[in-house]
Order: sequence, then C-alpha cells, then structure tokens
Amino acid sequence: MSIGNEMYELARELFPIDRSLTGDGVRQTLAILKRELPHLTLHEVPSGTQVFDWTVPQEWAVRQAYIEDEKGNRVVDYKQLNLHVMGYSTPVDRWVELDELKQYIYVQQGQPEAVPYVTSYYTRRYGFCMSERQRDSLKPGKYHMVIDSELFDGSLTYGELILPGTGEKEILISTYVCHPSMANNELSGPVLAVALAKTLAKQSHRKYTYRFIWIPETIGSITYLSQHLADMKKRTVAGFVLSCVGDDRTYSYIPTRKGDTLADRVARNVLSFHYPEYKKYTFLDRGSDERQYNAPGVDLPVCVVCRSKYGEYPEYHTSLDDLSVISPEGLQGAYDVYMSMLNALEHNGFYRIKCLCEPQLGKRGLYPSVSKKGAYDAVKSLVNFIAYADGEKDLIDISNIIGVPISQLIPVIAKLTEADLLECIDA
Amino acid sequence: MSIGNEMYELARELFPIDRSLTGDGVRQTLAILKRELPHLTLHEVPSGTQVFDWTVPQEWAVRQAYIEDEKGNRVVDYKQLNLHVMGYSTPVDRWVELDELKQYIYVQQGQPEAVPYVTSYYTRRYGFCMSERQRDSLKPGKYHMVIDSELFDGSLTYGELILPGTGEKEILISTYVCHPSMANNELSGPVLAVALAKTLAKQSHRKYTYRFIWIPETIGSITYLSQHLADMKKRTVAGFVLSCVGDDRTYSYIPTRKGDTLADRVARNVLSFHYPEYKKYTFLDRGSDERQYNAPGVDLPVCVVCRSKYGEYPEYHTSLDDLSVISPEGLQGAYDVYMSMLNALEHNGFYRIKCLCEPQLGKRGLYPSVSKKGAYDAVKSLVNFIAYADGEKDLIDISNIIGVPISQLIPVIAKLTEADLLECIDA
Amino acid sequence: MSIGNEMYELARELFPIDRSLTGDGVRQTLAILKRELPHLTLHEVPSGTQVFDWTVPQEWAVRQAYIEDEKGNRVVDYKQLNLHVMGYSTPVDRWVELDELKQYIYVQQGQPEAVPYVTSYYTRRYGFCMSERQRDSLKPGKYHMVIDSELFDGSLTYGELILPGTGEKEILISTYVCHPSMANNELSGPVLAVALAKTLAKQSHRKYTYRFIWIPETIGSITYLSQHLADMKKRTVAGFVLSCVGDDRTYSYIPTRKGDTLADRVARNVLSFHYPEYKKYTFLDRGSDERQYNAPGVDLPVCVVCRSKYGEYPEYHTSLDDLSVISPEGLQGAYDVYMSMLNALEHNGFYRIKCLCEPQLGKRGLYPSVSKKGAYDAVKSLVNFIAYADGEKDLIDISNIIGVPISQLIPVIAKLTEADLLECIDA
Repeated sequence: MSIGNEMYELARELFPIDRSLTGDGVRQTLAILKRELPHLTLHEVPSGTQVFDWTVPQEWAVRQAYIEDEKGNRVVDYKQLNLHVMGYSTPVDRWVELDELKQYIYVQQGQPEAVPYVTSYYTRRYGFCMSERQRDSLKPGKYHMVIDSELFDGSLTYGELILPGTGEKEILISTYVCHPSMANNELSGPVLAVALAKTLAKQSHRKYTYRFIWIPETIGSITYLSQHLADMKKRTVAGFVLSCVGDDRTYSYIPTRKGDTLADRVARNVLSFHYPEYKKYTFLDRGSDERQYNAPGVDLPVCVVCRSKYGEYPEYHTSLDDLSVISPEGLQGAYDVYMSMLNALEHNGFYRIKCLCEPQLGKRGLYPSVSKKGAYDAVKSLVNFIAYADGEKDLIDISNIIGVPISQLIPVIAKLTEADLLECIDA
Repeated sequence: MSIGNEMYELARELFPIDRSLTGDGVRQTLAILKRELPHLTLHEVPSGTQVFDWTVPQEWAVRQAYIEDEKGNRVVDYKQLNLHVMGYSTPVDRWVELDELKQYIYVQQGQPEAVPYVTSYYTRRYGFCMSERQRDSLKPGKYHMVIDSELFDGSLTYGELILPGTGEKEILISTYVCHPSMANNELSGPVLAVALAKTLAKQSHRKYTYRFIWIPETIGSITYLSQHLADMKKRTVAGFVLSCVGDDRTYSYIPTRKGDTLADRVARNVLSFHYPEYKKYTFLDRGSDERQYNAPGVDLPVCVVCRSKYGEYPEYHTSLDDLSVISPEGLQGAYDVYMSMLNALEHNGFYRIKCLCEPQLGKRGLYPSVSKKGAYDAVKSLVNFIAYADGEKDLIDISNIIGVPISQLIPVIAKLTEADLLECIDA
Repeated sequence: MSIGNEMYELARELFPIDRSLTGDGVRQTLAILKRELPHLTLHEVPSGTQVFDWTVPQEWAVRQAYIEDEKGNRVVDYKQLNLHVMGYSTPVDRWVELDELKQYIYVQQGQPEAVPYVTSYYTRRYGFCMSERQRDSLKPGKYHMVIDSELFDGSLTYGELILPGTGEKEILISTYVCHPSMANNELSGPVLAVALAKTLAKQSHRKYTYRFIWIPETIGSITYLSQHLADMKKRTVAGFVLSCVGDDRTYSYIPTRKGDTLADRVARNVLSFHYPEYKKYTFLDRGSDERQYNAPGVDLPVCVVCRSKYGEYPEYHTSLDDLSVISPEGLQGAYDVYMSMLNALEHNGFYRIKCLCEPQLGKRGLYPSVSKKGAYDAVKSLVNFIAYADGEKDLIDISNIIGVPISQLIPVIAKLTEADLLECIDA
C-alpha cells in the first residue's frame, strides 16, 4: 500500500471521532496515533493553567445533542454529524417556537447544502449548525433543543514525539487535532505528520532532531510554547505547520513573518521545482499556529506549506470538507514535498571545492573527453555546482542559482566528496 | 470658514505684492504673515554677507517701470503686472526703435497669451516681459523704456517661526516668498505653512519642534543654512519644501538625494493611501530649495510633497499662474496630506507587543467570540498590527506591510496601550 | 588606416597558422604579436608541470595529415584546412573501408556545409572532421587515413605584456591563442588585445598597471594562475576575457560569479550607453577563461564583454567562422567599448564637492545668467554631477544615476577641479 493510501486510511479511521479543543475525542485520536507511533507521548495540562496571556479552558463533553420537532423527529443529531453542535456549547433543554429556534441556528451564507463549523470557546453560549436549505425548510411549530453537554475542570491533551538527531539543532513539525469531522482541515495534517515520523524514524542517520506535536490549535501551541519556548528558540532551525495537506488542487506557501528563514528558503526551493505554479501567500494570509510561532518575541522560523490553503477552498470549515476532498494522491504529493524539504535540510550546508581553478574532471571520468559543441551541456549540473561551491552560499542558494533541484545535487555532492574535491563547512 | 478657504483668502491678499529676492515686497508679505502668526520673527541679512560659496546680493527696488509709445500709451506697466519687468533689472530711461526694443523683451515660447517670469539676479541687465501676442502686435515706431529701479546695499529678509516640542528633534518646513504675482508658485507654499503652523501651535503636545521658514529661494536657503547648519544637522529628522501646493490636479513627490529618509518614508506612506496615483519623481527632477538641503555635506532629510509640481503644469512661471490655478480645495488637500504626515511622524516609533504569543483579545472584548468563517476579517488591522509589533519595524513600516493607513492605526495603538499590551521603544 | 582595419589585417595574417594548445603554431602566432608589441615576453612551461589539479600536457605536432581514396585523391588535407584533423590526434596510417572510416569522422549536426572544430586533449585518440555533405558523398571503397603527428614532452607557450601604471593596482586583459583557423573565435581576441596594448603603451599616464596575456584556453589560464595567483589577487581591480569580439551583430556581457565587481559595473555602465540593447548573460553562460578566474578561491573580478558570444552565433566552432564573420567595423566597435571601459576605470573614483550647498556657478561662467523656463536644462549634467558628488558614490554610480556617459563627465570633472570645487577621494 502506498504511503498516500496509508495516510488516507488513517484519516478515514479518525474521521468520525468527536474532537474539540479538549476532551475524549482528542484522547481517542491520539490513542490511534500512538498505535502507529509507539513512542508518541501524551500530555495533559490542567484547566485553569495560565499560559502566557491565556488560560487553559475547561474540558467539554457532549453526551448527546439534538433538535426534535413536536412529533419526535430529530431535525439534527450530534451523533450523526458532530458539526451540528457549536463547539463548547453550554447545556440546554428547552422547547421553543421556530422563530426563537432560528436565533440559535448557524448556517453557511452562500452554500445552502453546507453545515458550517462554528465554535465559541471563550464565551459561554449554545447553538446548532445546519444547512441553510434545512433551516429554511423547517415548519412553524415547537422544537426541543437538547444539548447534554458539560464544561468542567479537566485538561488539555496533546501528543509529542521526539526523534533525536546527531546534532543539537532541531526541526519542528506541528499539526492540530481539535477539529471534528472534517478531512482536509484537519485530519490531513495529523496523518501526514504520522507518515513523516514513521519514515524519519526508520532512517539510520538524522542530522537534526525532529520535534512532532499534535495539539489543539491556538491554545495548544500557546500552551506548548509556554512550556518549551526557551529550548525551542535555542534549537529550532526550521519548522512547518501541517494543515490542509490532503487535496490535489494546488500547493501553497505562507512565509514566516521574517520571510527569509531557512524554513522559507527550503520551502520555496522545493516548491519551485516540484510545482512551479504554487501559490505564494504573504504572512498577512496566516491563520493557523504559525501565528503563535511567529509572534514577536517567539520568533520561531515556522512557515506553512500546504495544498489548498485554509480559507481558500470552497469546502473549508463546513461539512463539505469530508473524505472526498482529500485523496491518497493529494496526501502523497504533500508527503513527497515534505520529504524533499527535510532531505534538503539534512544535506544543506556550505560546500567548498577543495582545489583552485576547475578540477580536471576528465581524468576522473566525470567529463566528456571529446570537446565539441554541446559536450559541455551534459555535465552542466556538475560544473555549475563546482563553480558556485565557494563556501559562502549554501546548497539551497546554489540550487536556486543553477536551477537544479537539491535531489539531483545530492548525488553530485557524493561523487565530488568521494573524489576528495569537496568539503562541507557547516556554518 | 474651512482651512482651505482661509488659505485661499490669504493668498488672494498677498497676490498683488511686488516680491523679489529682497526688498519691501518681501517685508510687506512677511508683515501680513506675522499678523497671522504673532510669534513669527523677521531677520535681515546685509547685502555682501558671504554665505558659503555665495554672497547676499544687493537689495532691489522698483519705483515705477513701463514702456510707452510715442503717443504716451503705456504698452506695459509694472504697476499693472509686476511680471512685466525682469527681476533685478537695472535702471533704464531710453527712447528706442521697435527693433531695438525687441532685444529687451522676453516672451514665452508656445504660449502666446502668457507673460513669462524672468529674472537676472547675478548678472546686471534690464528687460521687459510680455505676451508673444502683444509683442508681435507692436507697431514700428519709437518706444520709451523706463525702469526706475535701484540696486543698493540693503539686506535679505526672511521669516522664522519655532514651535518647540518636548524632545530635541525637529521637523523643518521651508517655503519661499520671493516670487511676484504668481499663485501656485509661489503663494500656495507660504499660506500652507501658515495654516500648518496655526494648527500645530494649538496642539497641546508636540513630540517634535517645528522650524518654519519663509525665505527667498536658493540664496535664502543657502543663507539660512550658513547660519544654522550645525544645529539643523543635529536635530532635523524630516523636512519638507512647500511649493506648488495649491492646485487640484494631482499630488507629486520628489525624494531626497538618499531616497529613504524618514521624510521620504512618511511621504510615500501617506500619499500611497491618500492618492495612490500620485506622481513619483526622482531627485533628478528637483528644482527648489531641496537642492540646497540635499547638497553633499548638508545632507538634511528634506523632500518635496506638492500638488502639480513646478515645471510640470502649463501655467508655471507665467502670468497664467494666477488665483484661478489654485483653489480652496487644492490647498485643503495639501493641508490634509501634510497634517497626515506630521501626525504620522508624531506617532511614529518602534512598537512592541508586551506578551508572548498573541494576546487573548476575546477576554478584553477586542475579538469576536464566535469563530466562524469571516470573523477573523473584522479585526484584521488589530491582529496584523500585533503580529508585526516586534520593536524592529516602525509604525510606517507596519502601515506599509499591513496596508492600513497610520491614521487608522493610531486608535489601535491607543486601545492596545490602554490594555497594557503595547509599549513604544523609541529608537 | 583605422584601428579596426589594422586589427583586421593582423587577424588575416594570423588566420592560416596551425595553432593548438601547444606547439609551433602558438609560437609563430606569438612571434608575430611580438613584432607588433616588442615588449611582449614569451614563456615556456614544460610538459608534465603540475598546475593546481591539472598537468601541462605533451606538445603536439602535425607534419601532415589527410584521407586519400584508392585513386590517390585527397578527400581532406590538413594543409588545406587545419580543422580537418581533430586536435591532439595520435598518429595513424591505415587503409580502411568506408564504414570503418566513418567511425573516425566528426561532422556538424544541422550544418551540412560546416567542418566542425573538435579536440581530444586529454584522451588519446585520432579523428577527422569534415562537412556532413562531404561525408555523405563518400563512395564505398578503401580509404587511407594518415595522421603524421607526434605527442612529445615539450612545453606550453604563452605571451605576457606588463604596462606599468603609477599605482599598485592592475587590470587584467586575458585572451587565447590555441584555436586553429577560426576568426571570431579566436583571432579577434588576440588582435584586440594587441590594439589595446598599443594604445595604452602610448598614453603618458596610467593609474593602473595593465597585465595582458595571450595563453592557450583553460590549461593556459590554470597554468598562469598557478604561477601568479597570489600577486594577481592582491593587485587586480578588474579584468576582462577577450573572446569573440570581431563581428558586428551585437554586444554581449557575461558577469563575474559575484556579479557586482568593478569589472561588472564598468562593463554594464559603458554598454548601457554604447549599445543599450546589449545581451546580458548570466554566469551560467560562461565558457572561456572566466571559468578559472572566477573559480572559488581564485575569485578574480574578471568578466566578459564581447560581440556575438561564443556558442551563440551559427558559425561558432566550425569552418564557417572565417574572416568573413569578422570585420574592421566589428573589431573597431569592440575596441571602442574596451577603451571606454578602461578610460572610465582610469577616471573612476569617489568625487566630493568641496563647498557646502550648490556652488555659485554663475560667477564662474558655468551657469546661464537669465533664469527662465528651460535654462536649467542646459547645465543639467553639471548640476546633477555636483548634486551626487558626495564622496560616497563613485563615478560609475553617478553616471548610472544621472544617465550621462562617463566620457561626458570627464570634462565636467576637469572644469570643476580647475575651479577648485571638486576633490577625488580614492577609496
């Protein structure tokens, strides 16, 4: 089974779980991920913990929730689609007339068939979500609004996996597990993180340590940073927020605030070869945990590389973002891009040619022996790499300048290193 | 009465006065300005004073000047239009034939109705200006050229107004009062300077000291700089030459020689929001006192923000540049742009958000409590300002990056400061 | 006779000589150049000498070489066209059938009339070159392949001419003399170098020392650098590889690896005025000795300014690159550009105006005495030069900014220096 298919099957398994910022849905999700990655560790942070300017919220649980009409027909039911209940709804058990009911119903403007995803984490209220079409078809009469939910002091749950490398520096992979049944946003990120972690765990050598985290969005990254910031600032050379990495329509990139960190540079380099038409957003288009990682004073070099960006595809934050939006091919494409980026980072460095003037490649069988028009072209990548290997530009720079993907330069580096013509000066 | 109307009325009052580089016309003009700005001080610099590479010229006075035909008809008369006499003309009282007369007549090529504005400050000669149409209609015969002028050791006069601020740094506003009866160039600059000074004088708090000067062009700025350069180099953070700020056709900007001083940055920022189609000239297009302020070794950060730039509108330097070229609306537009720039400068600084990660805006009522598609948009300016408030970019930078005028960020800064979330690090 | 004609006649004289990397053809060529430039010195470097990663090759001599058919008709003959024999061919004397013969014949794909230029310097083999048309017209039968050549320990020959200047810094002019009978590539370079050296030798004052070298390509520059690198790194401010400077179709420029050295800056400046449509290549398009001069660790500021660049014109590296490709006009154009560049370099420096504010040009007769519309234009170059003469931008910068060729600024500098208004601060 291809890695794309494995990711898709895992997403399918996770899809129905009732996730929110906190609660058993998150725990069930992380338990399944732990089955895939036995070294994953789970962490609980108590409600009320102060995390920078925020407070870890109460835990939310829903036993059942529905709207019933006078005949006992369930208009909507949380058990059928967890998007029907506004996230963090307080309990309610009331009979109301249609007009009043409508005050508690959220619909998606302009998408009559879509049930929107709505939350109210930090203000106590309750509400239901349904399609505009369904709301407009409701007949006058009495309706029974039931949300059997509980908000209580519990904890916020997150998962963490550290894959140690030989050096002190590390790469952050951050994704989130707080969304109920939506696929591209956000099961694609968690399953891609699992696939990357599995592949990296099998590698015999890693220059970098990899820090993977599966957290609730916003409050999760703030909580995690409040615990780990000093260490992460010291170690992190690049990081990526994995979100919306499962469809097959395009590739997208959102830079860091600073715009030219190692994470940005490797992302732009790899995407420019993999999918030259990728969409370049600006930091003004940010929206997920890159907001926290790039906040002033936090300043971690974390950017976003995704497929169709959150907020930019029609199914976003509605019931239409289901398993048909993502595909094994879409997930595989994201996996390939991420592995290319991580590989490029592992091989990146400041290379320097060890002899003065061009080396005599001919005597080493690396150059055509007959000089005629066109002969030079055949070894262009090799001679161009040599021409720029001055110890001042890193591999990403050279790849950009000479227009050759890093994946094609890695064997060139191997040949030249073997011929004792090249050294890497890590800076 | 609107400020635009006040400026226009003052220009109308000043219009007929016979101004030149020196002399009583300048003094009458400055006396009227002093009526508006009682703290204005007048300064006299004696003829012959050495000012850098130049010498303050003699004072010039004209009692009367005209050309008369044989029948005693006045062909042109200085009393009717002071542009008819070349500035700094030496005295003459001669009867000549038409052919010889024509050697002393200057006309405006290509504008048959316009009387040109011509001077000869540093070479002794005399001359008359008239419209091409009038010159070509002169009949053969004798003409009496009379210029009852005097060149004598007197002084160069200028006005200065200092509005002290709380800090040591200052802003220069420089304009000139040496042009005879022309409106956009140059009564618009002097009356705008008066309006700005009045407004600033009323403000309860000024971070910057404001140095306003009303001088003759070129020799005036050289003279003033020869007296004040060391002090101005130490204090000046930004300066503007006010010239051609009264018509209503466009806005224009001429950068400093260095091109990226604080003056340039605030000018480009304000104009990009106020009138995005404004004309960007280069320093090669300079022509007024910015030439002196930007000279090598002087190096003051002084640029030009104007309406239709000198040399770029058809009425320029002719009798057509009369009170119909400028308007209350044109002057008001320039006033608004200048006040926006000065306000932006007063509030400019390096702002830094005081908490790590995004602040919890919801609990302070600064953020929508329901998270649904589009909610984020409503507070975009606020969250974007926070995201960039890293203490490394100043307010102008942030305004440029997030695309929000500084006038809209000032209340955002107030809110965040009040919530104790923001500090300003002045650098 | 114009310099263009002189260059052309010298190229005509050199054309038939049997040049290669080494050997008597090079020596005959240099002997003729020495007749033109008596101070030229000739140098011999023994075969087998280690030069960085390379070894100076054996010397190659050809007494005769041809293909004959059974009737004794010479199909091709080295004496008629030296391109018919692959450079550095080993000896052969064999009768073969047509099919086998064809294995030793090189033709130019897509150019049926052209005899290609082919070499095999570092792998021992033999071969013949002919036009595709000729090869395809060969009839079945036996053919006699004869190459009476010798490869033996001898030496590599090059010529050098040093024209001392008053300062310590120097300019490198490098060209090559290893190509058999081809005109644009490469007799144009050697004859242009001769013309430049003659002109410079006659000049009474040179700020820079000029180092001219006539070498075999690649191995020659590597050899020369292995002998002179330390000294050249200390002294060289700019250098140029002269190659393909004889046709009349365009001008071309290949930057250094760093892209913004003094050589690059003067090349772009001069070409932008001389021929604004010149072709800008990148360092990826390099191909001649600039490869060695720009190699990491060598890092000499050497770029290429040529007419139609090697590899980019149809006759390149074939028998079609004959004396009809180059012309006196083509060579003269290159000479003019090079002299403009060298002149610009001789006058380049950081100029600073000595007075504060604009100087009073009127009293020195450098400014029109009547101020009227348009008067300012007449002295634009002068006042613009003054405005930017701040001691921080060099002459090339100022020329670029104000859009005036350096050749027109040199007299401006002279006038201002004479008036004691300008100083040059060499940095």
